[in-house]
Parts: sequence; C-alpha cells; structure tokens
Amino acid sequence: MRDHVRRALISVFDKSGVEELAKGLHEAGYEIVSSSGTANYLKEHGLSVREIADLSGYPHILGGRVKTLHPSVLGGILARRDFDADLADVEKWNIPLIDVVVCNLYPFEEVAKRKADLGDLIENIDIGGVTLIRAAAKNYRYVTIVTDPRDYGTVIEEIKSLGNVSIKTRQRLALKALAATASYDSIIHFALSKAMKEEDLFPDVYPVSLKKAASLRYGENPYQRAALYAQPLQKLPFKQLGGSELSYNNILDAEAAVKGILLLGDRTGCVIIKHTTPCGMAIGKDLPSAYEGALACDPLSAYGGIIGLTREVDKDTAVKLASKFYEIIVAPGFSTEAVEAFKEKRPNLRLISFDLSKRDELRLTKTAFGFLAQEDVMAPDPDFEGGEWTGERRPELKDDALVAWKAAALAKSNAIALAKDGATVAIASGFTSRVDAVEWAVRHAGQKAKGSVLASDGFFPFPDSIEIAARADIALILQPGGSKRDEEVKEACIKHRIPMLVTKMRAFRH
Amino acid sequence: MRDHVRRALISVFDKSGVEELAKGLHEAGYEIVSSSGTANYLKEHGLSVREIADLSGYPHILGGRVKTLHPSVLGGILARRDFDADLADVEKWNIPLIDVVVCNLYPFEEVAKRKADLGDLIENIDIGGVTLIRAAAKNYRYVTIVTDPRDYGTVIEEIKSLGNVSIKTRQRLALKALAATASYDSIIHFALSKAMKEEDLFPDVYPVSLKKAASLRYGENPYQRAALYAQPLQKLPFKQLGGSELSYNNILDAEAAVKGILLLGDRTGCVIIKHTTPCGMAIGKDLPSAYEGALACDPLSAYGGIIGLTREVDKDTAVKLASKFYEIIVAPGFSTEAVEAFKEKRPNLRLISFDLSKRDELRLTKTAFGFLAQEDVMAPDPDFEGGEWTGERRPELKDDALVAWKAAALAKSNAIALAKDGATVAIASGFTSRVDAVEWAVRHAGQKAKGSVLASDGFFPFPDSIEIAARADIALILQPGGSKRDEEVKEACIKHRIPMLVTKMRAFRH
Repeated sequence: MRDHVRRALISVFDKSGVEELAKGLHEAGYEIVSSSGTANYLKEHGLSVREIADLSGYPHILGGRVKTLHPSVLGGILARRDFDADLADVEKWNIPLIDVVVCNLYPFEEVAKRKADLGDLIENIDIGGVTLIRAAAKNYRYVTIVTDPRDYGTVIEEIKSLGNVSIKTRQRLALKALAATASYDSIIHFALSKAMKEEDLFPDVYPVSLKKAASLRYGENPYQRAALYAQPLQKLPFKQLGGSELSYNNILDAEAAVKGILLLGDRTGCVIIKHTTPCGMAIGKDLPSAYEGALACDPLSAYGGIIGLTREVDKDTAVKLASKFYEIIVAPGFSTEAVEAFKEKRPNLRLISFDLSKRDELRLTKTAFGFLAQEDVMAPDPDFEGGEWTGERRPELKDDALVAWKAAALAKSNAIALAKDGATVAIASGFTSRVDAVEWAVRHAGQKAKGSVLASDGFFPFPDSIEIAARADIALILQPGGSKRDEEVKEACIKHRIPMLVTKMRAFRH
Repeated sequence: MRDHVRRALISVFDKSGVEELAKGLHEAGYEIVSSSGTANYLKEHGLSVREIADLSGYPHILGGRVKTLHPSVLGGILARRDFDADLADVEKWNIPLIDVVVCNLYPFEEVAKRKADLGDLIENIDIGGVTLIRAAAKNYRYVTIVTDPRDYGTVIEEIKSLGNVSIKTRQRLALKALAATASYDSIIHFALSKAMKEEDLFPDVYPVSLKKAASLRYGENPYQRAALYAQPLQKLPFKQLGGSELSYNNILDAEAAVKGILLLGDRTGCVIIKHTTPCGMAIGKDLPSAYEGALACDPLSAYGGIIGLTREVDKDTAVKLASKFYEIIVAPGFSTEAVEAFKEKRPNLRLISFDLSKRDELRLTKTAFGFLAQEDVMAPDPDFEGGEWTGERRPELKDDALVAWKAAALAKSNAIALAKDGATVAIASGFTSRVDAVEWAVRHAGQKAKGSVLASDGFFPFPDSIEIAARADIALILQPGGSKRDEEVKEACIKHRIPMLVTKMRAFRH
C-alpha cells in the first residue's frame, strides 16, 4: 500500500469527548475532515479542520440533506488498500483515502419520544451518516469506524502505541456500528408505523431492536445468567416506587399479577400470586375486603407472595398489607400516604405502579421452534345471562362464577377454581389430569366447597369430575364444553341437580 | 412543482417481473435509469434504458463498490418537490429528479447460509442499494420506493389509473422498505458476529429481525391470534416428519419435551408431557422400557400427551407408541421403518425430529416489564457422591435420585417428584405450597411411594414435608437447602431415619 496522508472523517451529533479524540488524531499525524456542525465545533476548540465539501469538490445541497454522499468521500472509505484496481481508481479520480470514520447519529429515539409529528420524524432520518457508518464498517479491514464516544480512548491508545487501531478492535467496532444502524432503522420503522397508524400485530418482517435495560443477578436459577431488555420507544408501563431490585422471577410473578388484575376488569379486586400461580383471588366492596377474601383461600401459600390490586392503594389498605410479608405489591397506583406506610414497615417491599392502559398486547416467546407471537388478551367474562345452561339458572351466583372463571383462566392448565362469597376457596393449577384437579380443589376447600361455584379452564373429558362435585355440594359448574362426552357430563349434572353453564370458550394458560 | 420528465431508477438483484414493471413505467411516460446488471437485463428485453453513470457524470469505481453514491442521484431522490430552495439546488446543479426507485438487494441471507467465509460476507454487504432505498423511503411524500416484486402490480395499476402512486401506497411501501433495511443490517450483524466469533449472549444492543414463518390458527386460546416467527440465519433445529400441523400449544408442549430430553442428558429415557407439565419420566435399558416406566406414573394423564425420547426411535418403539393416542412424538431421530409404522397406524401423529446440538441457548420472553433474556441451561445432575448428606448414603438409589430430581426440575415450581426403579411414580407440579405438593405426590404414588426417592425443586420451608415423607416410607430425599429452618428439616430427617442429599442448587421453573 502506498503511503498517504492519514485522514479521519468526523461527523458527530453527540460531541462529548470529540475534541480530545480529534486532538489525539491530529497529534498522531491525521488530517481531520469534517462537516459543518462538527467542523465549527472543532475549530472553536482550536483544531484545524478540512471541510468535506473541499474534499468532494461538491457543496452541501438540499438544506443539508446531501452532504457526504459523494464518490470521493465514499470511495475514500471503501477502497481496498491492497487491490491494485481500487488504488488505480483512487489515483485516477484523485480520491483522498479516509482511515478513520467517527460518526454518530442524531438520536432518532429522542425525537420520537418528544412525540414529534410525522414531518419532524421524517426530517430526522439520517441518510448520509448511516451510509458513512455502513461503508466504513464494511471496509473494517482497512478502516476504523467509531460510533460510540466510549471507544475514543481505546482508539487513541492503540494508534499511539501500535501505530494503528488493531484489527481485533476494528472488527469489534464494525459489529457495534452495524448493530447501531440495524437498531436505528428498527426504531425509525417502529416510530413511523405508529405515526402513520399502520401498525400490524403480525407483520411479515418484524425488526426489533432491544437495548439492555438491566443486568439481572441471574435468571430462574442462579446457574442461568439473565438480563432485561427494553424495546426503544416502547414506554414501560410501570414505575417501581420502592423496595429491592426486581429479580427475573419477580418480573414473571409481577406479570402474572398484572394478568390477574386485567382479568378482573373494572371490579374492585385482589389476586395473590406465588411462583406465577394464583393462590387466591377475590372481589369486594373495597380493597381491604377483596384482599381478605383472596388471602383466606390459602393463607399459608400467600406468605412471601405477590399481591395484585385493581385500584389505587390507599393508606388503610397499605397498613393492612404491611402487617404480613410479601415480595411485591402491584396496583394501578399508590397514594403518597400508602407509599409512606409501606416504607416505614416494609422498606424492602417492591411497590409497582402499573399503567394498565399502556400494556402492549403482543406476547413473544423464543422457543427452540421459533418465536411464538400471540395476542395477550385475557379470557372474556362468561356469558352468564345468555349462555348455554343445563338445569336451573342461578343469577345470585354471578359474582362467584366470575371469580371462579377468572381464577381458572389465570391458573395454569389444567386448572379448577372454586369460589364462594366473591372469593376463591380453592385453586388447583397445573394438573395433568382434570379429575385430579377437581379432587384436589374440593379437598383444599374443605367445608367451604359446599355452595361454591366450580370453574374449569377446559372441558371435562369424563363425567367423573361431576360426581366429585356432587359429593362436595358444588352449587354451579362452569366449563367450556367441547368434549366427545359432553352429553354424559350434562346427564351427570342433571342427575345430581347441579346447574351448569357451558362457556363455549376455553381459558388455557400454558 | 415544475414539470419534469418522470423518471424511475431501477436496480434489482431479484429480476422477477422487472421487465413488465419497466414496460409499464415506460408506457406511462417514465424514463428508465439503471445500473449495469439491471440495465443489461432490461435492454435485452427490448427496453430503452439510461445508465446511472450518464446521470451522475461519474463512472462506476472500485469494482462496483461505488456506483450510485453520487449527489446527482441522491439529490434527485431526496429533493423536496415543494421546497423552493431544494428546487433551486436541483436546477443549479442540474440534478435529474427521480420519482420511483425500484431496488432490491442481493440476499445477504443466502450468502450467509452457504457458509461463505468472512471475506465473501463482507463483499456482499450492499452500501449503495441500501442508501437508495433509505433515501427514497425518507422522501416517500414525493417518491415511490418499491423493494418487493409483489408490489409491482399495485404500482403500475395506480400510476395508470391515478396518474401516480397514491400517498397511502407510498407510505406503506416506505415502511416496508425501512423494515427491509433494518432486517438487512440485523442479518449482517448476526452473520458477522458468528463469523468473527464475537457472539455475546447479552449484548448492549441486540438487533433482531423476525420473519413470519407460519400463521397459526390461534394462540393459547381461540380468541388469541398468533403467528410463528423465525430469526433469519438461525437454523430451526427440528424437522416434522409427519402428522398434522403444529399448533401454538403443540409448540409449547414440544419445547417442554425437548427440555425433558435435555435434562436426561445421555441416558436412554422418556418423558411424557401434558400441557407443558410432565406426567411421567423414566430411564431404562431401551426406549420401550423407559416409555413403559414413564407411562406407569400416570397413564390417565398420558392420554393425548406429548412423548419425548432421548434416542432415535426404531420400529419396535414406534409400534408400541402407536398403540395409544398421543399428540406429538419428539426424538433426536426416527428410523424409516419407525416413520412408516407411525404413518400406518397414526397418520395425524406429529413426529418431530430434533437436533439437540443446534438448540439455541438464549430464552427470550416479552413481558409487560420488558424482554426477559436468560440462558436456557438445564438443571445439572445432583452431586450424588460428593454432596452434602444427612444420614446414611444410598448409592443404589442414584438412578432414582436422578430421575426424581430431573422431573422436579422440569415441572413448574413448586414441584415434588417421586421416583422408583428408574421411573417417576408421582410428579406434583405448580403448587403454591410445598407441603401440599408433597402430600399430593405421596397420595398419587400410593403404595409405590414406599422406597422411592423424593426430590423437591426448592427448599422445605418447614419440616412438615419430612413428616409426610416418613409416613410414606420415602427412602431418600433431595432438596436444594437454603431455608431458615434447614436445621429443623435435617433433624426431622435424622429423627425419621430418612437420608437426605442437599443439592445446593434449586431447580425452579416458572
């Protein structure tokens, strides 16, 4: 490769540290080439800078829309220093070689966060800068691309000690640059889709850019490393108002509590979660009574659990909750007095204020078989008045039917829930046999099973569950129907005089 | 806006349909501008084409690395047609306006799939095409960007019927173009990371491009729409050899079966899954005996379940499995005779051949709190020889200890598994109280509890579980330890003369 003046092109929005970098490059013998804003900034800091327009022989046009997009500039970046044909072109067309490209973009994310209108968003899409970055990353075998001010130190250090940036570092920086351009276009795509109201829940091509939001201590278990990622521009719908940091399993548990809250809809209610499984759910005239109802279902399991509440938490509720040990309280809000009451008694208790309206409706899970995407909608209320009934209608059991149904929907399949007086009295979750779930729920409820409503998240494959329900004096059964033996199940209900509402929809959770 | 010759720039790798498109544009009065490959192709098809080099007055340099990157070309795309200053620049610099950009890229994914080396990968990173696409997408208010041959029809139709492509269509095409460039750089980043061996499980910026692989009928429930996405370049590690299409829940279930297989490591074993929960797990001298062991744990639950096997399935095993109704069989492979035997008896049975070595180790789940990422590593074997023992060591129970421990790890927390003669005799899963799980498992096992090994995926908070184990004549207990009451638990074991191995690691699954 022929000797040439070493040259660095600098074009940055984020100016932090750039004058030290430019100084370092200058000291190492580099000519600095720059565009308007950066050029002025560096000149103000006493550096001698050559204008890009001078390099390309072409002025800035279209109000700055086209500044760097010139063959002289891009040729100087893209030329392979050990290809004779490339070097011949460089010589013939008098192209100044560029060895270092320092470029970062106007942060589109910030613009989009300020709810800029579509016109502003479009004006802020960088074309030239992205082209410079991508060209330099492509030619990393000869060119150093620096997109992150945190890398300036390494670059200067290596140039000073090794005479050039090492290939290992150039490689790493090229990957970082490509991650940046990929993310940049993902964010633009996301923001424009929203602004144009062209959002599609299941598009053919779905670019996602994730940004590490937190390193977690570990995942489900200490031998599993883990991290939390955020999707740029997607506002996280929660605020933590106090307590220890959220762990991986805390987040899964809190998510289950949010689902419980969503299932209860506009009712005043409470759900208690343990290992993502509900151990109590209730509605009530106010939060303290709903909480008491949910707690009574299984006070032993509730210890160390996660509490979900459907209303803003006031001081009375907080004082009541703080008398026991819980991991997390999730609610749409907390009064100032409630937060103080918690902090005084339970400083480590995690308080999560959750804005239900901002919850994203897409669930995405990476499996070995691909990414499963589904609408994260909750099981609707059963059609209590219009539904398909067997036996006598029981309008007075509507609330209990609702709570039993929603608890069964929240619990993992196969799930059976029993509810009475607006509160679950048993929730059987994750059974592999439905009749086992019924048996366990009835046994757990004990005397409270009598007069309760039993809801099943899937159909009864056999009438055996009805026999158990009859022995326990269950007052009403809800189930989706759909079994080959639906008629036998109905007959068993008629025989035992247990009314049954067929919901015509299942409520699985896997 | 001034009148000008309408102009379309066409630069495509995928030539399908491009001659019809060019013909349509020509008929509508458009001048066609094109680069070498596309220009030759169109000329061969009898179309008159103007060369880009003629437009820019600059030749192709660096072996084609710089062709379209010229202010005349990009200015003609980026000029705002209703900005006087832009139009003045256009006039002053004699920039030919471009109204339609038709551009698709050399499919980087195909190159990467052919395992091209790093040099090939780099050479195939398109700089000019991406710049054209991004510039045209940015200026969609005046310019039409077409990246997908499937849109040619609409474009021609609208130009013919409306005189121009509608703003609605231009908007949609711009979004599609940005999704394409975002995905393109994600794929490059992914492929280069692999080729450079710079993969990081938890990078700060994690660009992902998802491609719809299948529309699923629905998600967990019929009221939840769903789809399956694949990450480009990530080879799916499975092949479906027969049977009906996989549903959303099938995939979750098959994933649980794969986890069961991985947990069993190099042993000959079988796991049976129902609703992602194991209802039987066993090891054996061959697959049929392992299957029988797993089935005996809960034959009722196994009906309609998912079978996971750790070895290639031969004909004898297939014939045995085909005598009962299952949803899916997952195994590292199937002999041709096995596949035939299944097809004859169970044509709808889904057969999944799974390459365990190709399984990705990152688990990613989108929650309302952000994306949870964790290493998807399985609970290790308990340290049977070196571990912390209370009471008499029982080397003859090593296999049973392993099966009980792995089944508890696979089952949702709180989980308790009992194993005897290499097979589980009870698996309690998803309980919110540990003592309830112990009680249920012991009851389910009945007479078989006697002499079995009991494993718990988490510590015992109280010694009550040991009392139940003692009454059931449990031979050995495995548990992680870590409770405040570990000493009380130990004392209970000593009192009841049940040996205990403290695994020092929990095996939660949430």
